[in-house]
Order: sequence, then structure tokens, then C-alpha cells
Amino acid sequence: MLNKKIKSASIVVIGNEILTGRTQDKNINYIAKEFFKNGISLKYVCVIPDDKKTIVNEIKRLKKRFDFIITTGGIGPTHDDITAESISLALKKKYLLHKGAYKELVKYYKKIKSELTDARIKMAYMPQGSKLIKNTVSGAPGFNIENIFVFAGVPSIAEAMTKEFLKIIKVKNKFYSTSVITKLFESKIAHILEKAEGLYNDVSIGSYPIFDGKPRGVEIVISSMSNKPNALKVKKFITTEINKII
Amino acid sequence: MLNKKIKSASIVVIGNEILTGRTQDKNINYIAKEFFKNGISLKYVCVIPDDKKTIVNEIKRLKKRFDFIITTGGIGPTHDDITAESISLALKKKYLLHKGAYKELVKYYKKIKSELTDARIKMAYMPQGSKLIKNTVSGAPGFNIENIFVFAGVPSIAEAMTKEFLKIIKVKNKFYSTSVITKLFESKIAHILEKAEGLYNDVSIGSYPIFDGKPRGVEIVISSMSNKPNALKVKKFITTEINKII
Repeated sequence: MLNKKIKSASIVVIGNEILTGRTQDKNINYIAKEFFKNGISLKYVCVIPDDKKTIVNEIKRLKKRFDFIITTGGIGPTHDDITAESISLALKKKYLLHKGAYKELVKYYKKIKSELTDARIKMAYMPQGSKLIKNTVSGAPGFNIENIFVFAGVPSIAEAMTKEFLKIIKVKNKFYSTSVITKLFESKIAHILEKAEGLYNDVSIGSYPIFDGKPRGVEIVISSMSNKPNALKVKKFITTEINKII
Repeated sequence: MLNKKIKSASIVVIGNEILTGRTQDKNINYIAKEFFKNGISLKYVCVIPDDKKTIVNEIKRLKKRFDFIITTGGIGPTHDDITAESISLALKKKYLLHKGAYKELVKYYKKIKSELTDARIKMAYMPQGSKLIKNTVSGAPGFNIENIFVFAGVPSIAEAMTKEFLKIIKVKNKFYSTSVITKLFESKIAHILEKAEGLYNDVSIGSYPIFDGKPRGVEIVISSMSNKPNALKVKKFITTEINKII
């Protein structure tokens, strides 16, 4: 189904605050939308606690399975910010002060007239060989090592780092996506969608009930990562078949 | 760290619409909050596509690791609703029409004066031996088989099923959680939090920067699943130490 040129990605959200419900995650949705627009196929997301062993295991497990691994969260100055150290462990890299990152911190805290404490300097420690991901919002940069891209958890910073990531990897695919809205219920059109799904293996179809207490109809989304003409043929097929039963 | 009486849980969100960014998931946060209040420890969340093989693999992998597995999504009437069939496969159970579920559907579609089509009847198919999870919002029930609890993806229905789940499992633990807010930056109090973290192994501490363009301070959350007195001692320790440096 997937064009070989299409890169796959996974997001690892690191943070107890998501698992206790204290914080509603916003980064998954933002990154997912940006990836979709830019033709990167987000295949898997997980949310894990601030726990070194868990982070190490997930990074090891996922890095082999996807082209890109994005992590969010756990790169601040406090005791529960252990993402950089855990990734160093997972990749068997030394966990060291990155000179470029340190310079960024010096510059930022000078600008906001605040002290560069030891805890803040910790934010410049990362796996040996990391490249920085620019933080255009606050001082501490993210980093990239192998196929792993480490973003902050604060949404405004994660968004800025997503933009930087897209600049770095320069993916050129574009998804094509179109939709058909009908007042018919999902159950009435299920047989049409099933047939449509079988037409081309590079086109996928999703059906999303419009629901406000009662079902009000369906939005059918037809998308393709590589073949707009086939997506349009599928759209035409669905529209024609629906018109037959209205 | 965890009291043995505390049950662990994982959520498996099933749906391409989350991975393409079309839909912002709301169920993770709702379920996380309810679990936290009711003393269930949510340890892991994943978001996976509507793909049979992926669902089967994740269910097999996670069911051994946690007391409860919650799934959301993929139990509607259309071709991409494959959760029930995939779980049957994962557990090597027959995928059969559940008579009680069928009755619920007959009742509901009679009430809303709509036809019970074949596609809708599909919603009564589930792994052999499943117990129903009541759907107080629309007709089709969720189901429970072994330690797996299958909810709908529509948020109002997922919320109703979460309430039913809590009735079914009757967990009695209560988390205790309290917080301290300070205008000091995370970096200034990191050493205090590190010490506090070491005091009792049944108390956990999270620090959450208050951020609106610039850091404005920190909320420190102190919580325990089983030991309120220790959590209060840790709170007192943190407050005292912070007052020393203000």
C-alpha cells in the first residue's frame, strides 16, 4: 500500500502528566497534521512515564521499525527530565555537554536576564554526536541523534521544533486527500465503501460518523500518498454509488 | 514503588484519524483523569492504525503486561471497524454474534425508528465469551473479554463506557494528590525536588513549568497512590525548603 519513498514515523510522548490526566496532550495532533500535509506517514504513537527503563526499552524497540522517531517531553531542568540521558543509554552513546547547546543557553539566559544555574546547564547535556534542533521560542534546543529527534513537551516549543524538523529532513511527498459528505448513515453505505476500498491499493478510505447525540451522516475521506488520479477515481465511484441509493 | 493492590492499565487507541491528525483524541485524557481519581495506574498508551495485524500484535504484547487493557475505536458498522474481529484473532476466540448485543441493537434502532441493516448487525459480533459494556448513549455496546475492555471511539460514548467500566471492576484505591505553586524557576528548585523525590518511595513528585512565552514559575505536584501521610510530609519538606531560598 505504501510507496517506498514515503517515510514512516512514530511519536514517543514522555510524561507522567499525560498518563495521570493532568495535561491534555496537544503535540500528537499538531505533529500528526504537519506530517500528513508533508507526506510523512505517522504509524505509531505511544505515551510512556518519566521512567528511564521504559524510555530505553521503547526507543530500542521503535528505532528499528520506523524511519523517524520523535520524542516529546522530559528535556527541562528538573529531576524528572531524563529523556536525553535515557536516549544516551538506549543508543550506548556518552551523555555529554554539547558546546553548541551550552552557547545557546548562555545567550538565552543573558537575554532574559536570568541566571544559568547548574540545573539549566543540564539541558545542554545530550548523547555524544547529537545535532541541535533549534528552539526559536525559549533557549534550550532539542537534538537529533541517529533517526531520533528529541523535542520539548511545551506545545509552543514542540510546534517550533516540528517546523525545524521538516526543514532538516526536506521530505517532498504530498498527501492528497478529498472527502464526500452524505446524510446517509454509515451502515447504509458500508457496502459501497468496502467495494471502493478494493479498487486501488494506493488509496485509503476512512468513514467518520457525524454525531451529535444521534448519527447525522458520514464524512468519507479518500486519501492517497502517491496517486491523486486514483483517489479522484475512487471519489467518483463513491459519489455515483451513493446517488444511486438516495 | 507501587502498592501491589494498585491495578495497572494501558489504553490502545485504534484509528487512522488520530494518526493523520484529522481528529484530536479526547479519550486518553478523560480516561486518564478518571483512572487517576479512582486509583488505577495508567502506565502506557499507544495509538495504532485500523490494521488487523497491528491490532493483533499490540493486544498480544500488552495483555500480559497490564491488569487492564482499554481499547477505543473501531467498533462501528463500516469496513474499517475491525477491532472486535482483531481481538478475537489475538485471543484465538471465535468471532460470533452476541445475542444480548443483538437485542440491544434491535431495541435501539426501533427506538430511533431506523433500520437494523447488516452493517449495523456487525456491531453485535464479538469474541466468544464476551460480556457486554453498556452503551447508555447510543445502541451498540462495548465488550469485555479476559482483561480487555473495548470502548467506542466517539468521546461521549467512550466516557459513558469508562463509567460502566469503573462500576464493573469496583476499584477502591484513591490517589492522594496535592500541589505547591512557586514563582521560582524549575532550575532554582531542582535540588529540592531531587531530595524530596528520595524521601519515600511511595510518593511521586512532578514539576510543571507555568509558561506563557516565558517561564513564570512552577507547579509541583505531590501524589501517592497509597500513602497520604507521606505525601503530606513531602509537601511540608518542599514548602520549608522553598521558603529558605525565597
